[in-house]
Amino acid sequence: MRRPGERVDTRLAPPVQRVPRIDSVWVHMAGLSLVFAAAGMGLSAVVDLVEHGHSTLDLLAAAAVTAVVGAAMRRFSRIPAELSPGAVFVAVCISWVLTSVAGALPYLTTGLLDGLEPALFESVSGFTCTGSSVFTAENFADATPGVLFWRQMTQWFGGMGIIVLAVAVLPFLGVGGLELIRAEAPGPTSDRLAPRVSETAKRLWAVYLVFTVASIIALLLTGIGWFDSAGLALALVSTGGFAPEAASIGTYDSVAVELVLVVGMIIGGASFTLLYAALRGRPLDYLRNAEFRGYILAMALGMGLVALFLAGSGMAPGESLRMAVFNVATLATSTGFGNATGAGSPGDFAEWVPAAQVVLVLFMWVGGMTGSTSGGMKVLRAQVMARVAWRELRRAERPRAVLPLKQGRDVLAEDVVGRIAGFVLLYIVIVLAATLALTLAGNDVLTGFSGAVSAMGNMGPALGEAGPASSFAVYSAAERMILAALMLVGRLEVFPTVLTVVIIGRWIARRVPGRA
Amino acid sequence: MRRPGERVDTRLAPPVQRVPRIDSVWVHMAGLSLVFAAAGMGLSAVVDLVEHGHSTLDLLAAAAVTAVVGAAMRRFSRIPAELSPGAVFVAVCISWVLTSVAGALPYLTTGLLDGLEPALFESVSGFTCTGSSVFTAENFADATPGVLFWRQMTQWFGGMGIIVLAVAVLPFLGVGGLELIRAEAPGPTSDRLAPRVSETAKRLWAVYLVFTVASIIALLLTGIGWFDSAGLALALVSTGGFAPEAASIGTYDSVAVELVLVVGMIIGGASFTLLYAALRGRPLDYLRNAEFRGYILAMALGMGLVALFLAGSGMAPGESLRMAVFNVATLATSTGFGNATGAGSPGDFAEWVPAAQVVLVLFMWVGGMTGSTSGGMKVLRAQVMARVAWRELRRAERPRAVLPLKQGRDVLAEDVVGRIAGFVLLYIVIVLAATLALTLAGNDVLTGFSGAVSAMGNMGPALGEAGPASSFAVYSAAERMILAALMLVGRLEVFPTVLTVVIIGRWIARRVPGRA
Repeated sequence: MRRPGERVDTRLAPPVQRVPRIDSVWVHMAGLSLVFAAAGMGLSAVVDLVEHGHSTLDLLAAAAVTAVVGAAMRRFSRIPAELSPGAVFVAVCISWVLTSVAGALPYLTTGLLDGLEPALFESVSGFTCTGSSVFTAENFADATPGVLFWRQMTQWFGGMGIIVLAVAVLPFLGVGGLELIRAEAPGPTSDRLAPRVSETAKRLWAVYLVFTVASIIALLLTGIGWFDSAGLALALVSTGGFAPEAASIGTYDSVAVELVLVVGMIIGGASFTLLYAALRGRPLDYLRNAEFRGYILAMALGMGLVALFLAGSGMAPGESLRMAVFNVATLATSTGFGNATGAGSPGDFAEWVPAAQVVLVLFMWVGGMTGSTSGGMKVLRAQVMARVAWRELRRAERPRAVLPLKQGRDVLAEDVVGRIAGFVLLYIVIVLAATLALTLAGNDVLTGFSGAVSAMGNMGPALGEAGPASSFAVYSAAERMILAALMLVGRLEVFPTVLTVVIIGRWIARRVPGRA
Repeated sequence: MRRPGERVDTRLAPPVQRVPRIDSVWVHMAGLSLVFAAAGMGLSAVVDLVEHGHSTLDLLAAAAVTAVVGAAMRRFSRIPAELSPGAVFVAVCISWVLTSVAGALPYLTTGLLDGLEPALFESVSGFTCTGSSVFTAENFADATPGVLFWRQMTQWFGGMGIIVLAVAVLPFLGVGGLELIRAEAPGPTSDRLAPRVSETAKRLWAVYLVFTVASIIALLLTGIGWFDSAGLALALVSTGGFAPEAASIGTYDSVAVELVLVVGMIIGGASFTLLYAALRGRPLDYLRNAEFRGYILAMALGMGLVALFLAGSGMAPGESLRMAVFNVATLATSTGFGNATGAGSPGDFAEWVPAAQVVLVLFMWVGGMTGSTSGGMKVLRAQVMARVAWRELRRAERPRAVLPLKQGRDVLAEDVVGRIAGFVLLYIVIVLAATLALTLAGNDVLTGFSGAVSAMGNMGPALGEAGPASSFAVYSAAERMILAALMLVGRLEVFPTVLTVVIIGRWIARRVPGRA
């Protein structure tokens, strides 16, 4: 077995070369990513045509530009023979950023959004599966079916990238501490689906496709039509949170739609390797997984508490339960659909009693499972930290006891503690720095803090003035760029992105005149 | 050297016994503590007499009851021959609670506070050196000099207990992870002042006394009179935060008073072993200490940022600097003096721009140095966690590098990481649980959250409706009892108090009928 962090011979170039190619993993990876995005824009143009929109040509223009740039980048580059983990991190980050820039094109060529910043924000929010939107009611009224479909597609592409990143690439590179837990797992495990990254990726994408198709069918059965079903499914399996309607899920005001989405979100926020196992006939792997048990228990507890708090504040008991189940699920999985039918309606959790909001913010921090498309710090990290705290409590009473750290039946390596603690601290520091920047720009503490937590956790809605019945149009352009950066950091994990900034900074410093 | 957690022969009883004594460390320790408290009440009665108050007899009555109970507890108990760490924790916690109950007596015998709950809150707030008050302007107008002096004394006694607990008892018992850092320190160190706890305690108390007398003299020089000087000094050296005046430090509106207090708070929030070294002619030990450097740097940075934010919000530059220096110092050392001259005045930080409030909340979390009377999570823990995060960042780039964890010149043992991470998580969980309880009781998120952070960190003022120009009278009686419990947990450290609850719970469970 290959050890994490080892240098790998990945030369995949053909033996005879006819064009000059530069050795650059980021150019090659970003090129591939742009080609994918161009295909998505082309599909959106088709949808526009079928749905009698008037932006087919605008979308095709965006697709053409993206395809040409992407294809050229691929044609004139190749993956170097030797790859360091740092180079892969940089390539992943740059690919995500460049694809987000390209993803902004359809909003601009169709003339829907006014200027680069809002278009870029909407695109980053989509590709990071966050689901925070600058769209106003007028934007929804003006939007063609094609551009709305593209908006949903960005999330689906983002989710595809993330599951490969989370399940295959990052553990392979030895980042984030989670691969240690996996390496320790005894016996046959489904966590490493296949020894090679590309093989793993193919299997995950097959799972992802099956999940998408199943979601479309389930949503069609609720009677919301094929366009909304397909659009919602793209946001559902990627735990993205954009909806093709201005009032999000509040548009339908339907318990059936909400139930389908809750089940889909819970699956989407859980590990895709577990879904793969279930599709291969081992559904009980879910219950055997300690992280899944923690994820489900925490969510059930949160739903119960919120329902109690809402009922206690005067909401009807049935309504309280419905609102609690849907909104805890949407935040615990970092999806971010809203079921508010308007500002101040039962689903508008920015107007809920403070205690219920405190519970929601906790779920925004933790997020979903590792190996899923959800954001946040992840249930596994919270569980391990809780086990560490519990062990210290026992050690206070019996200082000499030997107390191994366990997750399920697995004994964890001790350096997992430092890895996770380091991650958590860095995560908190970044959220607090962003909170400071947002409050400095004039937001109140709750709007600034919840906006930062929501963006970092790729949630979607925040509290205060940016609640589910509002939009991120309440933030200024500069503030939204901070939030977009936070979405990328949250999405691509803290260590890779911070490391990328360090590496790119060093690279620039080396090229500053007057230095060796 | 004795290892942490080892059972110790502490039989101090005389060889011939004439009265039957029960073997109980908590009865003995609480008895001693009550005798000390009774002496303080007696001194307060003397102050009342000198200052022509009318509560001398009321205070003497409280002193007499406390003295009789305390002396009896000491007379009929002895410290057992074998002591477990758990038994010592339980004894410390029970002593603090019982002394707080006794400390409420003067508020009741003088008739100043109406009912047991506010009196107990004020007493717990004093003995834990928190400084949150239920006193209204009327209470200050009605209070006799003697009872005001007692209020100041409670903090001084609390501080005395804490430095011994933090520097001598807890490290000796191997709790909280900090003793590991100390045990690793090479060469002669001032951190273990003397090998035996009682010897250490005596030296610390001598330092504490010198510091108190010096503070009284410095305050007298500012011209605020002997009663206020003595009263403020008692709250200053213990980083308590009660003031003998209704408007706290805003009463004087004096830069000189504020400067003396800022210097005193910075010393009080720093390790007392460093102060001991300085008094023994080694003042440069302060600068050699990595935790002190972090403490000073963070405070300077915080003062600069807050001054900038305030100036940016329209406050005059000189005023901004004064307000920033005083209020960052008061919260970074968990003292909690306020220099607001009224609600909405420049010193009322509950009305500051949100960005400045975010900085203040950060200082409320971290607090001062280990081995001081200040509260919060402590600078050392924040530093070690930051070093852990930094190491993980470097490890992401070079997965195989061996990177030792260092604090100053010392290499830290790896299990310090788990101890501190466990502590931090438990601390956060307790604050969040209390926030939930407080918001559930009807507080807004900011008032609930900042109240919990403030109480857990033994700060004093909070934000929202419980700011420095307000009082904790805004919370209901039940909410104040939650906050008082939080003060005790924060004060006596998380592990000992949680462990005490566990041990007492087990003891009760064993005595429930129908169980083995």
